Amino acid sequence: MGNTFGHLFRVTTFGESHGPGLGVVVDGCPPKIPLATDEIQRELDRRRPGQSALVSQRREDDQVEILSGVDAGLTLGTPIAMLVRNRDARGRDYSELETKYRPSHADYTYDAKFGIRAVAGGGRASARETLGRVAAGAIARKLLAPVEIVAWVDEVGDIAAKVDPDLVSLADVEATPVRCPDPGAAAAMIERIEAARKAGDSLGGVVRAVAHRVPPGLGEPVFDKLDADLAKAMLSIPAVKGFEIGSGFAGTKMTGSTHNDLFYRAPDGRIRTRTNYSGGVQGGISNGEAITLRIAFKPTATIMRPQPTVDKDGNETVLEPRGRHDPCVLPRAVPIVEAMVALVLADHTLRQRTRAV
Amino acid sequence: MGNTFGHLFRVTTFGESHGPGLGVVVDGCPPKIPLATDEIQRELDRRRPGQSALVSQRREDDQVEILSGVDAGLTLGTPIAMLVRNRDARGRDYSELETKYRPSHADYTYDAKFGIRAVAGGGRASARETLGRVAAGAIARKLLAPVEIVAWVDEVGDIAAKVDPDLVSLADVEATPVRCPDPGAAAAMIERIEAARKAGDSLGGVVRAVAHRVPPGLGEPVFDKLDADLAKAMLSIPAVKGFEIGSGFAGTKMTGSTHNDLFYRAPDGRIRTRTNYSGGVQGGISNGEAITLRIAFKPTATIMRPQPTVDKDGNETVLEPRGRHDPCVLPRAVPIVEAMVALVLADHTLRQRTRAV
Amino acid sequence: MGNTFGHLFRVTTFGESHGPGLGVVVDGCPPKIPLATDEIQRELDRRRPGQSALVSQRREDDQVEILSGVDAGLTLGTPIAMLVRNRDARGRDYSELETKYRPSHADYTYDAKFGIRAVAGGGRASARETLGRVAAGAIARKLLAPVEIVAWVDEVGDIAAKVDPDLVSLADVEATPVRCPDPGAAAAMIERIEAARKAGDSLGGVVRAVAHRVPPGLGEPVFDKLDADLAKAMLSIPAVKGFEIGSGFAGTKMTGSTHNDLFYRAPDGRIRTRTNYSGGVQGGISNGEAITLRIAFKPTATIMRPQPTVDKDGNETVLEPRGRHDPCVLPRAVPIVEAMVALVLADHTLRQRTRAV
Amino acid sequence: MGNTFGHLFRVTTFGESHGPGLGVVVDGCPPKIPLATDEIQRELDRRRPGQSALVSQRREDDQVEILSGVDAGLTLGTPIAMLVRNRDARGRDYSELETKYRPSHADYTYDAKFGIRAVAGGGRASARETLGRVAAGAIARKLLAPVEIVAWVDEVGDIAAKVDPDLVSLADVEATPVRCPDPGAAAAMIERIEAARKAGDSLGGVVRAVAHRVPPGLGEPVFDKLDADLAKAMLSIPAVKGFEIGSGFAGTKMTGSTHNDLFYRAPDGRIRTRTNYSGGVQGGISNGEAITLRIAFKPTATIMRPQPTVDKDGNETVLEPRGRHDPCVLPRAVPIVEAMVALVLADHTLRQRTRAV
Repeated sequence: MGNTFGHLFRVTTFGESHGPGLGVVVDGCPPKIPLATDEIQRELDRRRPGQSALVSQRREDDQVEILSGVDAGLTLGTPIAMLVRNRDARGRDYSELETKYRPSHADYTYDAKFGIRAVAGGGRASARETLGRVAAGAIARKLLAPVEIVAWVDEVGDIAAKVDPDLVSLADVEATPVRCPDPGAAAAMIERIEAARKAGDSLGGVVRAVAHRVPPGLGEPVFDKLDADLAKAMLSIPAVKGFEIGSGFAGTKMTGSTHNDLFYRAPDGRIRTRTNYSGGVQGGISNGEAITLRIAFKPTATIMRPQPTVDKDGNETVLEPRGRHDPCVLPRAVPIVEAMVALVLADHTLRQRTRAV
Repeated sequence: MGNTFGHLFRVTTFGESHGPGLGVVVDGCPPKIPLATDEIQRELDRRRPGQSALVSQRREDDQVEILSGVDAGLTLGTPIAMLVRNRDARGRDYSELETKYRPSHADYTYDAKFGIRAVAGGGRASARETLGRVAAGAIARKLLAPVEIVAWVDEVGDIAAKVDPDLVSLADVEATPVRCPDPGAAAAMIERIEAARKAGDSLGGVVRAVAHRVPPGLGEPVFDKLDADLAKAMLSIPAVKGFEIGSGFAGTKMTGSTHNDLFYRAPDGRIRTRTNYSGGVQGGISNGEAITLRIAFKPTATIMRPQPTVDKDGNETVLEPRGRHDPCVLPRAVPIVEAMVALVLADHTLRQRTRAV
Repeated sequence: MGNTFGHLFRVTTFGESHGPGLGVVVDGCPPKIPLATDEIQRELDRRRPGQSALVSQRREDDQVEILSGVDAGLTLGTPIAMLVRNRDARGRDYSELETKYRPSHADYTYDAKFGIRAVAGGGRASARETLGRVAAGAIARKLLAPVEIVAWVDEVGDIAAKVDPDLVSLADVEATPVRCPDPGAAAAMIERIEAARKAGDSLGGVVRAVAHRVPPGLGEPVFDKLDADLAKAMLSIPAVKGFEIGSGFAGTKMTGSTHNDLFYRAPDGRIRTRTNYSGGVQGGISNGEAITLRIAFKPTATIMRPQPTVDKDGNETVLEPRGRHDPCVLPRAVPIVEAMVALVLADHTLRQRTRAV
Repeated sequence: MGNTFGHLFRVTTFGESHGPGLGVVVDGCPPKIPLATDEIQRELDRRRPGQSALVSQRREDDQVEILSGVDAGLTLGTPIAMLVRNRDARGRDYSELETKYRPSHADYTYDAKFGIRAVAGGGRASARETLGRVAAGAIARKLLAPVEIVAWVDEVGDIAAKVDPDLVSLADVEATPVRCPDPGAAAAMIERIEAARKAGDSLGGVVRAVAHRVPPGLGEPVFDKLDADLAKAMLSIPAVKGFEIGSGFAGTKMTGSTHNDLFYRAPDGRIRTRTNYSGGVQGGISNGEAITLRIAFKPTATIMRPQPTVDKDGNETVLEPRGRHDPCVLPRAVPIVEAMVALVLADHTLRQRTRAV
């Protein structure tokens, strides 16, 4: 249980980081949507490590194969299964990890839950699991057009981008390896990440995401509110510790008279709001304004320093640093955030279709 | 759709604020748990308006009736349905609300979604819907014993409580009408809320929640992580705009070497962590430490001031203030937060039972 | 768990036969469907005991109340909760039933499952639970119009009706208290049932159901096939032991060359089949022909004769006859079968809406 | 939607008959169950065509690969994905099938539902889809031990086996290519099937299944009754048109006084029933007796004779016979029936675990 996301656009991921392969089954995608392997691969390439000096130097030449659900370039309405083979086979010596619990990783909790664990590379708790999400998200985006979802690195440590969230484009984001659309902040972030790498340490930060052109009416009161499902989607991403929509925590300092988003009639006749502290969602339902999210990522748990810990038997010991590490996962998290936003919106788009009489 | 929460401990709420009644069906509660109506009523009384000058003066004499699933004081393992009749019948004139959209309420989005809406008192979007959640949460707590869940008002506007989260008790919380366990901060909050009321304005704030004695192993990777389900639960509460677990957004400013929670062996033999930036959840699974959450509530949308808005046809108009308002919902949100935490933990407790071999 | 039916048109029933009340919550019903309490009550009246000498003489003056989800005669798109109070309170002496297991009832299995049981009147296992289904089915039928669902008693013991299933109308069915549209067979059935009553014995039989005007395309391959969901729906009705669609078991004696339903073009341009051995479903999806079902009901387990049995401790004993009994449940099962067919079709109608591009 | 079966032991199949591959993801399997690829392959081999002259001569050298969820021969508690590559690539000319609807196949209904269809080999509607079910069923059986599930061909056309259902073993079933444990009936069935093949025609029949040693208490009232879920499981198998549990349709001719299964105390102290007309399920819950099912399969729709039909545009035409055909699918259906019974029992076994207090 727990490996399926969505009610109508249903995504089930599978796979361990060092097993034969990882993948995803997407059930509920409507038929006759044009879909090419390239469109999936392009998104997967964005989350791949080794793209720059900033991120992990592991080489993961992840090629996706569509196993089902697509014929002659069109979706069939049947399950779309996609597979990525693992190349980085279990060559290394993982014996230390079999016994010593890495701090702030999932080693101890997996043992507590399952009594067993795929040790190599983190197994199911590895960020490689998100491959399946990104592949599924690429399909969701096709379904959602013309909705546009853009995410970027807004903060690394205490360095914050200064941008107008309504104007950030995919090109702006991809312009720097750190995926921050503010060039000055990007340069500072890169410097800070390099310093952390040299210090064997790691950094956290904030990803911001905006979904443009979402029609009003998406979201199911009272539990499956659009923002509730978005929050779940974001917190299901490894290393995420916080979520905000619209004004978020800052909004708690405002008063109702300044926070309320006043309605007006736009020149095109649509009902709009003058401000967007709601972040595009009111009462759990989209209101047609941009959906704006902020997602907090903790600093990477893997660091290149010795750390005291315990082994499976509770004996105190020291975990020695080894292998490679990703001093800041934020740049690679951007396509994952976008994918999860897309999955939520696709599911709610299909749910809202059932309302038509 | 969207009115059911949980996979094994399943809660379905129903009811409009001014219809015949509201309630809840709890399916999946194990049999033979002692349960008395009083235990439900006690929690409902905590969320009731009119308890102090601080909160809404509407009188809601909400008496719960258990309709099924309990016999001779014991749960039967069958659905537990509970009903609260609405007393505050539709006497008022709601004609203005039928046409004018209240800012930052759900009027416009309900119309966009359903094309129809129960106008009186907010209908399904009213906070009265949470009655059913609180009633269900009272049952979940029985199932969860000896887990203890405590929530409180941590911030109102820019006034913040200074307390040790590990030590706050239910008695501390209930000691003041504002449900803030720091007496000094409580006094300041009360003053601030009174000022807002006089100004016809409203305030937001932050609720903090802690769950003690949660056993390790709860939470389903990868999508139904414990923190992901908690985030969804919190964002499903009206007026919530943000969620943090453990270090949350503040943790993004730390480095891995300071943020990692180092394991050690406690005198009682248990594996513990020296810090708890993880907030009791690692890799989506509870690790036995206290689960610590912070939840952001926006300032109440209802204010006692005229506000420009539009009507259903898009014509610009002005919404005049009328009726009563709750200048700060935080004190009444406390039992709702606790209930939703309990629902998540109860569901995951049952899910983990399926793991036993 | 287990008390909810349907994926998008979701029905959750609650209630014990002798508790405060029974009811149902219908979630997912689209908004703006006209709905009056009378329409629900009419269907409930059809399943009520005491309508004729044929069926149980218990008087159940079941009046339904709509608690939510309907405003000014229109559905709101929110959960529709409906409640029927129990009048027949626990006056009788049920002490014998607390210890002795009634043969072919659910007493023993409920104890095996839950370790506890509402003894009076069968509790949750009582056929009174189907009140909620019939109430929900009345709503489903509104959604389904112009689909027409007709069921009738086709066999009682070895007496079989001779009718053309395509031509049976609701009026034909309601013309006799036994709900058999063949007057000659109806008279024979009534006689047989009276004889069984006098003998303190009971009878089984077969209900046939036909759904007219179901559009092609309903049903979700591969597990949620339309006929698979219909089979589940029928077997979920108390006392049902068999299910057939189209040719059913008789079709196993045919050859492919005679059983295949040949396609042709009807005068109205529609693609039709010349025969309907498929029963309106091919590959799990409706093909536009009438959906034809047969459902086997075992003879009622309650009989007015002493029967050897065991008590909770496994001691052998004798169960003495007492109270009233329904020598043949078939006539009252008719509206329940219709309701369950309607629930399945309503759910699949909404599911198919998500396919539109 | 529709491609997932089970609530806690969740099975999702994917794949078209002539696409890259077919497979299944099993989510919810408990950890630490020994599992080898051979155990899966053995069951797949039983459903493979080309095993004897009786069944289709297509050669499907189906080798299964476990992609995830198993490490060092033990399940991890994470999703178990399994893949079978298609070898029989799209070489043939399927152009006729693109336009002409085969009678009593799913061609027309898939077009009606999806507006698109994988033509080659039946696509998703092919019986090859059941590969994934059989693979998943092999895992379910490991979980269920010591429950034993045996199915066999009980009837082909009007030839019926005469066996004691309680005594049939797997070896008895596998002793003949027709999988009928009555050698005399088996010989007659084989002769009849050969005659049908020569005549270019096809036959239907009945599969019987028995599950031994199922503990009392499985099954969730009121909708997810054990027999209701079994009925759904069986009707989800291609070509199934009927389902019986226990006395089934024949029981409708009995009276309550003969049909009731009387309880007694067995020498081992267990509460048993003297007869088993209930088929091991009472009130939707297993009672510890053998679960006995009968499943009706229609005659195969593919026959080697010209058949009048229509094309996509509604023009009347003739479908010419071509390729190979399976004059009777019953023998190959046996492992599929067993697998689906196993999936239902595994799911309900996990559901019942949540009841423990």
